[in-house]
Amino acid sequence: MTITTVGLDADDTLWHNETIFRLTQDRFVALLAPYADEPNLREHLAAVERRNLRLYGYGVKGFTLSMIETAMEVADGADITPVLREILAAGREMLSHPVEPLAGVPETLAILADRYRLVLITKGDLMHQENKLAASGLGDLFAAVEIVSEKDRATYERVFERYGTGAAEAAMVGNSMKSDVLPAIEAGAFGAYIPYVVTWAHELADAPEGHPRYGELSAITELPAWLETMDRETA
Amino acid sequence: MTITTVGLDADDTLWHNETIFRLTQDRFVALLAPYADEPNLREHLAAVERRNLRLYGYGVKGFTLSMIETAMEVADGADITPVLREILAAGREMLSHPVEPLAGVPETLAILADRYRLVLITKGDLMHQENKLAASGLGDLFAAVEIVSEKDRATYERVFERYGTGAAEAAMVGNSMKSDVLPAIEAGAFGAYIPYVVTWAHELADAPEGHPRYGELSAITELPAWLETMDRETA
Repeated sequence: MTITTVGLDADDTLWHNETIFRLTQDRFVALLAPYADEPNLREHLAAVERRNLRLYGYGVKGFTLSMIETAMEVADGADITPVLREILAAGREMLSHPVEPLAGVPETLAILADRYRLVLITKGDLMHQENKLAASGLGDLFAAVEIVSEKDRATYERVFERYGTGAAEAAMVGNSMKSDVLPAIEAGAFGAYIPYVVTWAHELADAPEGHPRYGELSAITELPAWLETMDRETA
Repeated sequence: MTITTVGLDADDTLWHNETIFRLTQDRFVALLAPYADEPNLREHLAAVERRNLRLYGYGVKGFTLSMIETAMEVADGADITPVLREILAAGREMLSHPVEPLAGVPETLAILADRYRLVLITKGDLMHQENKLAASGLGDLFAAVEIVSEKDRATYERVFERYGTGAAEAAMVGNSMKSDVLPAIEAGAFGAYIPYVVTWAHELADAPEGHPRYGELSAITELPAWLETMDRETA
């Protein structure tokens, strides 16, 4: 087996993202403190997000709309126009937030780009993800970029077929067990899990411990060596 | 010259879209009538949309956020929470609006799919466009779907290279002179302009009259014959 293609998740794998969502949520909680206490408010927002996911998909714009909707629901008729103005501004700030690559990312991608075809595979808002990739300065290292509405087995089969030599000769790398690792392994690819400091509740799942094509890494800098090991062990 | 690949725009080429935006704008104008008169309000909304385009991109979610922002600006501190609730609901209705293929679209695509590789090339929100394609029942006729953040010469070169045999052997079909026709012709492809009853102001541009690879059709049903003529005339 020879790995030819490496798929990489973007948010919280290449750069910080969830921390920015968390900071915005904290601001949201503070703004609405007069109307709802914190645990109820967070639960309410999560419920609205789940309800809207099929219509809004993933990304900051849908998150902003869900915050606005939640705020109006908990305020129950009170005038919260100033709060809504703040929420809109918070959403725009998230969209224009500077992109900070995680430690070791630029160096590691430069090494990997010499050896493999790199494909960025991410969910989220199309223009925002493209803007972030451009701002990261990492765009030239990727042979292809796929912004997808869902990351399932069929997605990985299709993407690795189109941009590589099929899923059996590909590895997928990311911080979400549920979206990056499990469906990629199911498609026949290798899967490397690199946890981020926090994980969005929707993305939690159990690890496929002991699976021959699975690995957990503590940092992206371990990736080149892990890929070589996988290549040798499954040769 | 043999045309192998036909790119098709989606909104207002395959199904109604701009009319739904216009209806929502009319509702927006009615809701805010107490705060601003119609011409100013429409101009204000257009200005907010332009300002946000770089951050929000194209699509219903960004349009909804721009309507909310505009409403708060024109209300100037008044309590418009009920109006904002209506705007949010209008946005969700747009996202779940039934998809109505334009007259002649299913039959014409069925004919074209036998002769050419069909590629859907559209701007907008990723999940919304995928949902619309699924709801249209036309998905199986397309060899590929590309949802892009911008439609320029480079986009068409890349897409027709990836999914076809290059732009020189491809035709692009759509209702926007600026986004569908001109940049595709610039990339070396053929361009067929099929005007819709209304056009978004951002998409207006002059026709390349007399260009050997350009045609204006009054309906999509004229497309198979036009493509054959183009093939013959440039043979």
